[in-house]
Amino acid sequence: MNDEERKTVELFTEHLRLTPLDPEADAADLHAAYGDPDVTGPWLDEPASDGPEQTRERLAERLAPTGTRIWTVRRLEEDTALGLVELVGGGQVPWLGWMLRKSHWRQGIMSEAVTAVVEHVLLAEGVPMLEAWANASNTGSIRVAERAGLTERGRFAVPDAQAETGMREKVVLGRTGPGVWTAFHAVHILLPVRDVEATLAFLDSALGVTAGFRVGPPGAPARYASAKLWPWSNGPSLRLRATPRKPITPVTVLLDSAVPVAELYDRVVAAGGTTEGPPVREEWGDTEFCCVLPEGHRLEITGPA
Amino acid sequence: MNDEERKTVELFTEHLRLTPLDPEADAADLHAAYGDPDVTGPWLDEPASDGPEQTRERLAERLAPTGTRIWTVRRLEEDTALGLVELVGGGQVPWLGWMLRKSHWRQGIMSEAVTAVVEHVLLAEGVPMLEAWANASNTGSIRVAERAGLTERGRFAVPDAQAETGMREKVVLGRTGPGVWTAFHAVHILLPVRDVEATLAFLDSALGVTAGFRVGPPGAPARYASAKLWPWSNGPSLRLRATPRKPITPVTVLLDSAVPVAELYDRVVAAGGTTEGPPVREEWGDTEFCCVLPEGHRLEITGPA
Repeated sequence: MNDEERKTVELFTEHLRLTPLDPEADAADLHAAYGDPDVTGPWLDEPASDGPEQTRERLAERLAPTGTRIWTVRRLEEDTALGLVELVGGGQVPWLGWMLRKSHWRQGIMSEAVTAVVEHVLLAEGVPMLEAWANASNTGSIRVAERAGLTERGRFAVPDAQAETGMREKVVLGRTGPGVWTAFHAVHILLPVRDVEATLAFLDSALGVTAGFRVGPPGAPARYASAKLWPWSNGPSLRLRATPRKPITPVTVLLDSAVPVAELYDRVVAAGGTTEGPPVREEWGDTEFCCVLPEGHRLEITGPA
Repeated sequence: MNDEERKTVELFTEHLRLTPLDPEADAADLHAAYGDPDVTGPWLDEPASDGPEQTRERLAERLAPTGTRIWTVRRLEEDTALGLVELVGGGQVPWLGWMLRKSHWRQGIMSEAVTAVVEHVLLAEGVPMLEAWANASNTGSIRVAERAGLTERGRFAVPDAQAETGMREKVVLGRTGPGVWTAFHAVHILLPVRDVEATLAFLDSALGVTAGFRVGPPGAPARYASAKLWPWSNGPSLRLRATPRKPITPVTVLLDSAVPVAELYDRVVAAGGTTEGPPVREEWGDTEFCCVLPEGHRLEITGPA
């Protein structure tokens, strides 16, 4: 079954009825959500609609792309549309979103609606996996996703002029269908270096990348060590291998920053690191600088300014 | 405050009292949990104790290492020890564990007890972060961790002779204290290759590593592309850069397998890939093989057989 063949069938839960969105018929009701900046802000990072007509237009635009399906959510015995659940296909992993008028928050409605869509898509339709993004501060939405069986799969940062740090953290939540495996859990990059201990000390002070295991004779400098790119067990790492004499061919590693890039640049400079100059804003909006290790390895660090 | 100075102070919650474990006094009660394979299996991956005396010995051993603290959990008005929460320090990220006698499962007791320990450690003591591991199938324990504010941070696989696939998936859950940031969200490795499209096709069929974005003139082969090491947005990737003529210096990437290594080896061979021979069992128990790309890049794949 491909995206085009999948229908937005009506779904029933214990308390809810989910029906295919009809922008004409549903706009008046859904404007209670779309006209509320407390709903559109955390959901869309966008302003509210100025009236039901604009809500109708935005709903129609949202529904237009091939592979997008939207369900309107109602209580079983009621006619009023309270919110919607959308599934945006077309990419590699279909993307799930939802919104609910504020008067109905924290009653379990969205958990029930999203769970119904997730289970229909993964179990009945056989879609292998889906994901949702939420602002890290939006604990309500994260809770809804978790109740629908999605778990955190990663994080990333987006620029946010309103935030004190100039950036905002997004959480990626995902769930796979039965029997779906991904091939890998973690990745490590081998970096041959002249001095393992000196590299560990620099990475720690400049980038907060801490030493994991060390291999070598007791009391002597490590011959091999891991530098953990994030602190959790089985996270990705740089694997440093002592290569005192043989020529070293430089490796380029790209790191997505979780803190403002300017802050990391300052730390690299303060730790005596070599760079190719201060952070530069790229055309796609991210800011980037390159930290060059003594062997020529390039750590290209990207993220919000 | 370092590990040695942190005391196992008494903690009170709405319904519970947590006190420092006393192996002598608590063994008889805790044997109701330690003597039950349904508790020790998912918790320790170990068999049950054969009697209270063995439970006492195991509790004393558990408590012995510097930096380990264990709280015994009781209802406020009761004397019976129902379970325990432990915090194992000494490593970089303290590790949290818990167990509860089966008669008291699914009553919210452990969620309340673990939350109390987590908040005491992160908020009162200022420990920057802690983590817990659970079998992916142990949804009860994962739920307890999530209620205590831990979220999924990664996964890994361990050998399991009982499992159909020969392996079992573990979930790493973690929580940071206020204001604690980790520096990076994702890592990507630059691989210069002769033919971006051919490499993408090989990685997809051999390793389930799918193409992400592609950069290049419309209709022409990509000059630059991402090969996603796992499917979720902002996961790690290989960044393939077309390098048609210039010499290429090989890079070594280590990948932790989430599926049996033998299965990946067979897929690599079936896709016409080059290896250095079938998977080899290493001294530390993992199985490993190396897939060599035409440019000499080494993908060293490690995991349960």
